[in-house]
Amino acid sequence: MLTRLRHLTTLENLPRECIERLLDRSITMRDACAHGTRKLNLLNGRTILNLFFEPSTRTRTSFELAARRLGADVINFNISFSSTAKGEELFDTLHTLEAMHMDAIIVRHKVSGTPDELVKHAMSGVSVINAGDGDRAHPTQGLLDALTIRQHKPDFSRLIVVICGDVKHSRVARSDVHAFSTLGAKEIRLCGPAALMPEASELPACTFYDDFDKAIEGADVAITLRLQKERMASIDLPDEAAYFRAYGLDTRRLAKAAHGCLVMHPGPINRGVEIAPDVADGPQSRILEQVGNGVFVRMAVLAEMLAR
Amino acid sequence: MLTRLRHLTTLENLPRECIERLLDRSITMRDACAHGTRKLNLLNGRTILNLFFEPSTRTRTSFELAARRLGADVINFNISFSSTAKGEELFDTLHTLEAMHMDAIIVRHKVSGTPDELVKHAMSGVSVINAGDGDRAHPTQGLLDALTIRQHKPDFSRLIVVICGDVKHSRVARSDVHAFSTLGAKEIRLCGPAALMPEASELPACTFYDDFDKAIEGADVAITLRLQKERMASIDLPDEAAYFRAYGLDTRRLAKAAHGCLVMHPGPINRGVEIAPDVADGPQSRILEQVGNGVFVRMAVLAEMLAR
Amino acid sequence: MLTRLRHLTTLENLPRECIERLLDRSITMRDACAHGTRKLNLLNGRTILNLFFEPSTRTRTSFELAARRLGADVINFNISFSSTAKGEELFDTLHTLEAMHMDAIIVRHKVSGTPDELVKHAMSGVSVINAGDGDRAHPTQGLLDALTIRQHKPDFSRLIVVICGDVKHSRVARSDVHAFSTLGAKEIRLCGPAALMPEASELPACTFYDDFDKAIEGADVAITLRLQKERMASIDLPDEAAYFRAYGLDTRRLAKAAHGCLVMHPGPINRGVEIAPDVADGPQSRILEQVGNGVFVRMAVLAEMLAR
Repeated sequence: MLTRLRHLTTLENLPRECIERLLDRSITMRDACAHGTRKLNLLNGRTILNLFFEPSTRTRTSFELAARRLGADVINFNISFSSTAKGEELFDTLHTLEAMHMDAIIVRHKVSGTPDELVKHAMSGVSVINAGDGDRAHPTQGLLDALTIRQHKPDFSRLIVVICGDVKHSRVARSDVHAFSTLGAKEIRLCGPAALMPEASELPACTFYDDFDKAIEGADVAITLRLQKERMASIDLPDEAAYFRAYGLDTRRLAKAAHGCLVMHPGPINRGVEIAPDVADGPQSRILEQVGNGVFVRMAVLAEMLAR
Repeated sequence: MLTRLRHLTTLENLPRECIERLLDRSITMRDACAHGTRKLNLLNGRTILNLFFEPSTRTRTSFELAARRLGADVINFNISFSSTAKGEELFDTLHTLEAMHMDAIIVRHKVSGTPDELVKHAMSGVSVINAGDGDRAHPTQGLLDALTIRQHKPDFSRLIVVICGDVKHSRVARSDVHAFSTLGAKEIRLCGPAALMPEASELPACTFYDDFDKAIEGADVAITLRLQKERMASIDLPDEAAYFRAYGLDTRRLAKAAHGCLVMHPGPINRGVEIAPDVADGPQSRILEQVGNGVFVRMAVLAEMLAR
Repeated sequence: MLTRLRHLTTLENLPRECIERLLDRSITMRDACAHGTRKLNLLNGRTILNLFFEPSTRTRTSFELAARRLGADVINFNISFSSTAKGEELFDTLHTLEAMHMDAIIVRHKVSGTPDELVKHAMSGVSVINAGDGDRAHPTQGLLDALTIRQHKPDFSRLIVVICGDVKHSRVARSDVHAFSTLGAKEIRLCGPAALMPEASELPACTFYDDFDKAIEGADVAITLRLQKERMASIDLPDEAAYFRAYGLDTRRLAKAAHGCLVMHPGPINRGVEIAPDVADGPQSRILEQVGNGVFVRMAVLAEMLAR
């Protein structure tokens, strides 16, 4: 019997048993919802706070839905997104929220490590959940991606995954790598233009590619990452069309992957930039399944932390 | 027995029986609330999403109240109002929300026809309710106006209604005309300066006026429309005072209407522009009754679509 | 038996019995929450609206939590903070909200007296609660400060309180003075630079100081006020460091107060401007207790007004 999770800031170093328990619990949540139970009441009377220092509609809404389906109250703490909120100012906000008896704080912040700082300074029994910090981690995204893969290809030891795009700045990619490697994935390939790739030493479990045609060969899962258009200027590619030719996932490239290769993307997608419309909407796409699983994974995480 | 309403994007072509059933159901809602039942629990566990691409406090709040009084959860999806959100980007948002298992999406968008586009692209059992699209339709406003009239003057076949103001750009006017004509109104008069009037061919059930003194003669209901001040520059009137002299509803003009003529306005009102303060606050004003009926009509629409 | 409170716009002239009953009720709320009752259901089915014309996260969240813990629904009415909303426009908004059957409206507005204007124009049974109007009043802050003091020093007749900082522009200071003097405080000292002090005639129950070292001598409670940085330019002090030297609460000054002097601040604090970090975080600080009490006081006020 493992100890209950108290916080979730990263998947790095989270034991395999813990990740598997969260994935199993996500399935329990999905089944409960599928059987028409609209409210689970596991977290009745609990208060969960969304503390987003970066704008987000999808992730915030997914957490809000997850919390409400468990019967919890949700407070959206209105932050001016121009606020830098760091150091003492941030910790004073934390302590104020603790004094109001919040049960969990879901935080998104552009500075990597902020959720861990909150954990370090928390004085009460509050739980901290990272909803994305800088380039570092987005653990519930890593879990929901692992869940989506497991539903179709349960044996990770035979799995070849390719993650393509702006890996360097992607917290999704890092949390995916942590989840998939802990679950024993056979091979994790990272692919992108040199300027958008992390140091190889940072992710030693992975193999690095700059040629997407080679990276996708035989892959069971292809994850394309959203290209932040404001980063285009800084990389050695003339425009979106050139990026798509080199790193976009189209049917020609998908044909080089293993039969039944899953197509995934954390969303929102840029059609014709990192993925072709017919692939995004095609039969191998699991993109909307990822969205649905996101709610179940977040229900599982909240229940794990807060249900009595 | 008519089939249940699945979506509500416009009142145009909605059968009279359906409109009457919704009005009857609104009265049931009003009576239930009046008898002290604060929560009806008809929609317990259902999730309703407000997807507003134009700022709105009144309509959004009215829908939120209606949904909560039925026991549903409400999510306000935070949209940057500068967002153009159209085409694939809009449909990707729709599919994301469907994947999160929303039961209904209430949408306001400046482009006419957007709610119908959402209906066309919806893949799941989600219901779409139009909370105002461009100049085209605002069906729950049409229903609440019909309800307000019916409470005082139940026989539409004897009813003369005048709608005065910027009819050309008014989705309220169009939904009112659809509701009143379907319910068999005797005469619907549209009045306003030529630059703010629609083509006569667009609304063949109506008679057109440019002289408000003539248009209001013998009317049973006088609806004045909010004048968007930013439109003043484009019309052939020097200023607000001149507009008021020509098209404002004051006591002198109201005296030309039928005895007991109802004064209505979709709000928020511009006092001294389209309506005189003493008329807006006077004994014939039904403006606040319209607001109250708005909640009951929206409860009826949501219950019709979502209650089992 | 006193009559039930219908509105709360200021503590001025509120009878001592009423203030004490609200403080007693706050303790009842605290105890109920401490015993694991997460929802009290006293206000099930009631709707409470946050109408904030000034941005606020802490106070809005505190009211929202209080209302939800009593089982009420909360609507956040999205106001553009650039909106001036005054006169008829404000009253039309009020009447619209009344027509939607709100049970209470919690209002913050930069113009002093706005909540009283709303009370004067309210047509229905709605309750109005002032969450801060201009420089004038912030009654729930006055109550929570009184509660925090009473928990440690129940005999107000022996109490010396010093309030230091920008008293002139502080609605917190005014509501504190009203609460403490009604509860029979022995001495209330106000201290700050001349440019930030009110007219002595405005607060005749207080003694005025410009030397904080003298003002704090023997004090049982020291309340420092947040210095709005944008006001620095208008006062005769070169910078924040100089302000801190003259009016900041540090350990050296705190040593001049009575033994066990309570350190309080309405938050959010400016460390090193009006208070030293080690005092704010030190053993005599009651700042986070104030935050916790804020929720209980607001529960008590809402229950007093709305519970049947």
